[in-house]
Amino acid sequence: MNITLIGAGGVATSLGLGIIAAGHSVIQVYSRTAESAKRLAEQLSCKWTDSISDIDLSADICIISVKDDAIATLSEQLSKRAQTNGTLFVHTAGSIPMDVLNLPRRGVFYPMQTFSRQRTVDFHSVPVFIEANSETDHVVIENFAKSLSNSVHTLSSEDRKWLHVAAVFCCNFANHCSALASTLLSRHGIPFDTMLPLIDETTRKLHTLSPVDAQTGPAARWDKKVMSAHEEMLADDADLQRIYRIMSESIHNITQKK
Amino acid sequence: MNITLIGAGGVATSLGLGIIAAGHSVIQVYSRTAESAKRLAEQLSCKWTDSISDIDLSADICIISVKDDAIATLSEQLSKRAQTNGTLFVHTAGSIPMDVLNLPRRGVFYPMQTFSRQRTVDFHSVPVFIEANSETDHVVIENFAKSLSNSVHTLSSEDRKWLHVAAVFCCNFANHCSALASTLLSRHGIPFDTMLPLIDETTRKLHTLSPVDAQTGPAARWDKKVMSAHEEMLADDADLQRIYRIMSESIHNITQKK
Repeated sequence: MNITLIGAGGVATSLGLGIIAAGHSVIQVYSRTAESAKRLAEQLSCKWTDSISDIDLSADICIISVKDDAIATLSEQLSKRAQTNGTLFVHTAGSIPMDVLNLPRRGVFYPMQTFSRQRTVDFHSVPVFIEANSETDHVVIENFAKSLSNSVHTLSSEDRKWLHVAAVFCCNFANHCSALASTLLSRHGIPFDTMLPLIDETTRKLHTLSPVDAQTGPAARWDKKVMSAHEEMLADDADLQRIYRIMSESIHNITQKK
Repeated sequence: MNITLIGAGGVATSLGLGIIAAGHSVIQVYSRTAESAKRLAEQLSCKWTDSISDIDLSADICIISVKDDAIATLSEQLSKRAQTNGTLFVHTAGSIPMDVLNLPRRGVFYPMQTFSRQRTVDFHSVPVFIEANSETDHVVIENFAKSLSNSVHTLSSEDRKWLHVAAVFCCNFANHCSALASTLLSRHGIPFDTMLPLIDETTRKLHTLSPVDAQTGPAARWDKKVMSAHEEMLADDADLQRIYRIMSESIHNITQKK
């Protein structure tokens, strides 16, 4: 299949590499800035543009992978040409409903993963959640998704919203817990790397135990002595102390319901 | 070496198996309840007792691996016999100072890992933080620790406190983020397993990027539209909404300082 990539950030980069690895062609990359359009186009050996009116709509699928806020405006700007060309568009955002695309043929291709430009993600293992506004295009998007990933699911815009907020907890907030730990450790000259075996095992456990069953630590035991000592240690940092207290209380609430 | 294990919980179980795997002997297991003493003793093929006065103090090291709160009392109860026998004691707690052991020969052997009874942990990769109240016993504990783990570090009680609070963030709080996600998903009939590739990659990233550099998501981009939509979705659950807001603000604070 011939694909046009609209966007050149973390998602677009990993996706572009996945598309090529699956044997498809990226025919063009668009980005607001020539610099990033060019950078990704070089990586994918294809054409690029920074002008919306030059976006190549002859592709089998045009993938819109820009900031959530920019999707609606962009779709508005493409609307007229899209109608003439009969192009199929999908966006890649977790929390944006399909119908924000004001385009006759529309769908969603949401790869649920954390993409950083510094890392290449193996697309085969990325769960992809798809949706389309017609049966025919659902098949087109599903076949395309299945050629890239071993884990393709059809999900409505409504359910995808919940999936996305859950992903924010599992990924963004869990990562932030490590970021907070790293600030504490660096103040005491302890390298963050010492935490990696613990973090690895915390994650491995989730493959065999539910997160509620896997819970350990002072809050799960409701060990008030340790918890007050910790809160006192964090007294100089209101942010950390507040998070410590609220997370501990929330662990206690869930552990008790078990 | 001959080891007496005082305690039969998650840490004592994984540690007992690690001790045997390293070629040492566990000569006895003590637990407050006969049932759990017996259970672990059977696993380790050794004697057991549920009576403090029968604890075998002839061991090269007696390892106290009981609830944090119980360490001081237990050490008090063993104090007299320990003086006569000249036994070396260590405890395994992250947040308890060495000197809570009111015993002439004392130290710490803190394996920083999340131990659940349902899972056997490979002890070789568990970072162990040690301390002793004499040079001689430091060598004894260090040699013992190095026979079990590839990652042995000497750390004072003061620094260990900080290590432990950091571990609570990286492990207990990060796991709780998954627990919160799992409650959201189950309400919408989406299996938690769909999150595993995302959680795995979130962890893998930390082996090559600092947690601050690895941060992604709406709060890192400070995408207010997505964040308000998420907060609104969580309006029925004060706990989740509060955590969503506080974690997002905290991510923003750290991302801005970058």
